[in-house]
Amino acid sequence: MAQKPSIPKGTRDFTPAEMARRNYIFDTIRSVFHLFGFQQIETPAMENLSTLMGKYGEEGDKLLFKILNSGDFLRGVDQKLIEAGECPKLAGQVCEKGLRYDLTVPFARFVVMHRNDLSFPFKRFQIQPVWRADRPQKGRYREFYQCDADVIGSDSLLNEIELLQLIDEVFRRLKINITIKLNNRKILAGIAELIGEPDKIVDITVAIDKIDKIGLENVKNELRERGLSDESIDKITPIITLEGTNEERLEKLSQLLSTSEIGLKGVAELREVMNGTERLGLKAKLELDVSLARGLNYYTGTIIEVKAQDVEIGSITGGGRYDNLTGVFGLPGVSGVGISFGADRIYDVLNALNLYPNDITGSAKVMFTNFGVEEAARSLAIIKQLREAGIACEIYPDSSKMKKQMGRADSLGIPYVAIIGETELANNTVTLKDMITGNQEELSVDNLITKLK
Amino acid sequence: MAQKPSIPKGTRDFTPAEMARRNYIFDTIRSVFHLFGFQQIETPAMENLSTLMGKYGEEGDKLLFKILNSGDFLRGVDQKLIEAGECPKLAGQVCEKGLRYDLTVPFARFVVMHRNDLSFPFKRFQIQPVWRADRPQKGRYREFYQCDADVIGSDSLLNEIELLQLIDEVFRRLKINITIKLNNRKILAGIAELIGEPDKIVDITVAIDKIDKIGLENVKNELRERGLSDESIDKITPIITLEGTNEERLEKLSQLLSTSEIGLKGVAELREVMNGTERLGLKAKLELDVSLARGLNYYTGTIIEVKAQDVEIGSITGGGRYDNLTGVFGLPGVSGVGISFGADRIYDVLNALNLYPNDITGSAKVMFTNFGVEEAARSLAIIKQLREAGIACEIYPDSSKMKKQMGRADSLGIPYVAIIGETELANNTVTLKDMITGNQEELSVDNLITKLK
Repeated sequence: MAQKPSIPKGTRDFTPAEMARRNYIFDTIRSVFHLFGFQQIETPAMENLSTLMGKYGEEGDKLLFKILNSGDFLRGVDQKLIEAGECPKLAGQVCEKGLRYDLTVPFARFVVMHRNDLSFPFKRFQIQPVWRADRPQKGRYREFYQCDADVIGSDSLLNEIELLQLIDEVFRRLKINITIKLNNRKILAGIAELIGEPDKIVDITVAIDKIDKIGLENVKNELRERGLSDESIDKITPIITLEGTNEERLEKLSQLLSTSEIGLKGVAELREVMNGTERLGLKAKLELDVSLARGLNYYTGTIIEVKAQDVEIGSITGGGRYDNLTGVFGLPGVSGVGISFGADRIYDVLNALNLYPNDITGSAKVMFTNFGVEEAARSLAIIKQLREAGIACEIYPDSSKMKKQMGRADSLGIPYVAIIGETELANNTVTLKDMITGNQEELSVDNLITKLK
Repeated sequence: MAQKPSIPKGTRDFTPAEMARRNYIFDTIRSVFHLFGFQQIETPAMENLSTLMGKYGEEGDKLLFKILNSGDFLRGVDQKLIEAGECPKLAGQVCEKGLRYDLTVPFARFVVMHRNDLSFPFKRFQIQPVWRADRPQKGRYREFYQCDADVIGSDSLLNEIELLQLIDEVFRRLKINITIKLNNRKILAGIAELIGEPDKIVDITVAIDKIDKIGLENVKNELRERGLSDESIDKITPIITLEGTNEERLEKLSQLLSTSEIGLKGVAELREVMNGTERLGLKAKLELDVSLARGLNYYTGTIIEVKAQDVEIGSITGGGRYDNLTGVFGLPGVSGVGISFGADRIYDVLNALNLYPNDITGSAKVMFTNFGVEEAARSLAIIKQLREAGIACEIYPDSSKMKKQMGRADSLGIPYVAIIGETELANNTVTLKDMITGNQEELSVDNLITKLK
């Protein structure tokens, strides 16, 4: 009995048309990474579970895809766990490896393992798939690509300026209008210090992060529920409702946070990054957004988030500065700053706005028809010359009916069809048909090459 | 306690230097695939186990990496299997998914699922990693890349000729001298028919496949052990010891197999493929090798194997024609022909012969030094112009000691260092140091761009 095949839920096949569009995105990002001096690494799809577990919180541990040990995986397993049906603990005994959940933890592991061979500051990029056993839904997949660039081993704010330039360049090339939102974790710390509740920084940040979604009054209510006094809320309100230009906001912030050393440091860092970036010119809009938090427990300085201006969608790129990437693997004090492009969301934005160039079908530029042995032999000889000139081409392999052959070129979006029949054989020419206009012309091989190049 | 990190055995990290070399190989193969009109697809890393199991033999089933079901994976599991320690059967109950083992089975599954959206003949290529729980050893990994190109839905021998041209072009670009060995499964069938033992084709093929390794006498002994009569062995001997040019071998073969219809068909196909390919000119050496078998149970026509001429290593590319790729998934009668480049072995060959171009470090072309705020600001502005001209560059992010900064450029193989100090600030120039010759020259920005482009 033949099986009716399917693929695991939350995963995707990519057809040639989809691959052409995805490669356009990946190639653009990769080119810009190179242009900015980032160097590529790759890590294995599988990591030891000891590397992955405990790095993404309790929920994250559950979302790791675990790989069953080969062979006699039950040997040495605690029978009581089986009897009690203790699946999570049992999983740790029958599995040693898991699929990577993001690129950050494998990168940290990589840095520690290869630290003696790396030149610091280390500017790495990495474009690989990651896997999460999330519940699949629209726009959320169990296998998706991350495109990360990080500079580690340098706390210079020049790195932030370079990364913002890099983001601007990627989206300029992709023709997506973006707003880059910026914040600094030290400003959030300053706010907590200002109201004398430094240990409430998480509560405060979680609440104000929602201001775009739920509005000021609801944020105030939430702050109240989280135990802040009305006085504290009054102090916070002008900070989270800042208006005006970025310079005006920075000015206002330094007044409001004038009693907090860390807060002022955050403002100074943000000013240096924003001014340094704007001095170089950006196509993107740069916006100071004090409510921006993103992975608070991870970032320690600059926080970056990118939104598309013309499509309603979550952030399409994000990142920030961290102080202790590799500490958990025994190498403390490595500061770094990084960004991650969300390739799948960028794909959705490009699709929604139809921003792809016309010529990215991934198909050959010209298809030669096939009317028989002699015609095909002549075609192959000419095809060889075309390929030497860098022109992608193919021949219809069978001498099928004309209509069927033309249909192939049509459905693949091949822009030209080259026809060699009796006349062309005799004249030593090729008739080239433009599949868009329908125009045909008989050309010498030299002219054919010139025309298609 | 910090962990000492490691990666699963049989897997590898790739450093920037290694990535640059690997990308050189992948980019070369990908470019040639495009040039020949092949279109890229990708399939998920995970397939349903029902798709994978039973496709690679019993041994293959054991080598599949299986992914433990999420959540309460013990629910509904047959307790008796646990008590009996029946790991293989139990694995099938606690795992629904596995990592792909090759690109062929996922491709067959893809074709069946997407058959209504594809244009046949379908020329696809696919470059993705595969995973096998093999015992790791030198040159054998648990994660490695395959680079496959197939044409399906056409039985024209033009496809073989195109694929041989493609192989020639890839290795011409990589500067590896190769011998392409060719055979045809129908010739092997003809040999079995000739001696009146058509059901001994596997035995015969397994034995004669070893002739290069064990020599003629041992092959004869093995044939004898496998139940062939001395008379049969005498009939086979002239076939497996063919000498002379390819044309002489073809001629001799058609005499020797004159009583076998299928054998003669094999000779005719091989002649058409070899003549058609040689007419177009090849850099590779083309060699008829009747002892070539490769995955006998799979191939039905042409069989292809590529060896490097200057390094002792197994085959670096292989392929052939098959008749029933998708039958197991309910779509019978799909003929195709494909090849697979062994990227890891090609990597070994290039390393052994040191055939990489000099400029594939994956690093920036120029690094700007950093002597302070003002110098860095000027550098960033110039860097922006360089990048607009397509020149990959970076700035040392901290104003560290000169020696440390130069050390970075050196260790990354960055060929030029651009220095902006007091003099250059005043003159509005850049001093460019060639890191290979040690020469320095002071240049205007325009001249800098011209020089580096």
